Amino acid sequence: MLGRLNHVAIAVKDAKQAAKIYGTAFNAEISDAVPLPEHGVITVFVTLPNTKIEFIEPLGEASPIAKFVERNADGGIHHVCYDVPDIIAARDRMIAEGARVLGDGQPKIGAHGKPVLFFHPKDFSGALVEIEQA
Amino acid sequence: MLGRLNHVAIAVKDAKQAAKIYGTAFNAEISDAVPLPEHGVITVFVTLPNTKIEFIEPLGEASPIAKFVERNADGGIHHVCYDVPDIIAARDRMIAEGARVLGDGQPKIGAHGKPVLFFHPKDFSGALVEIEQA
Repeated sequence: MLGRLNHVAIAVKDAKQAAKIYGTAFNAEISDAVPLPEHGVITVFVTLPNTKIEFIEPLGEASPIAKFVERNADGGIHHVCYDVPDIIAARDRMIAEGARVLGDGQPKIGAHGKPVLFFHPKDFSGALVEIEQA
Repeated sequence: MLGRLNHVAIAVKDAKQAAKIYGTAFNAEISDAVPLPEHGVITVFVTLPNTKIEFIEPLGEASPIAKFVERNADGGIHHVCYDVPDIIAARDRMIAEGARVLGDGQPKIGAHGKPVLFFHPKDFSGALVEIEQA
């Protein structure tokens, strides 16, 4: 039921700058910076052979990661995202196991154009968990 | 030069308990708890199709993650580990790019029996980075 680790997201003040060392020291492929105004973030992806690192930077006044970046001036790991074959079945099973879904529990369209949901970090060892319809 | 994401490590008070929801809600494969006294941790691995989540729990008085778990009572993402084909070449290139290696800079044998090194979180957007000889 649990699919691939889709990405690890690191929230920072400057996504392009943060991704840079992965390009220079590691020769990894770095995407362009893509603003996602509807999510309040700018994203830069680093592609690894088996998954991605997503750097996210606050965009706009109401960015959902503004406070996180304020609290973590150097940046920090913000969430991990897992693919699931059926997001509604996965949501219901996780809720049945006691995990709290964030927001109204209805999937929204995420950065990859697919439905996503977030779960409370307190139910996942302090790690904010995103699930994405594979 | 940068290989696979080897694992994401989440530090918690009780590794077995923390991994449990991945087994029950996600049907993921959960390893037994393995004490690694020389590293001061107990580890439990969750196997995903493309990588692993490693739960680490402090073991002993001098555990290197004791303070982290004290500060993050619910747990938290502790580090990310990348495979590299040549750990010495990777280390030297990362140092040349301004990243600070932790400890004496000499690889130690990690949880998988392979040489590992850690780099300062301040040089990687607040994320403690481990590299492991692939």
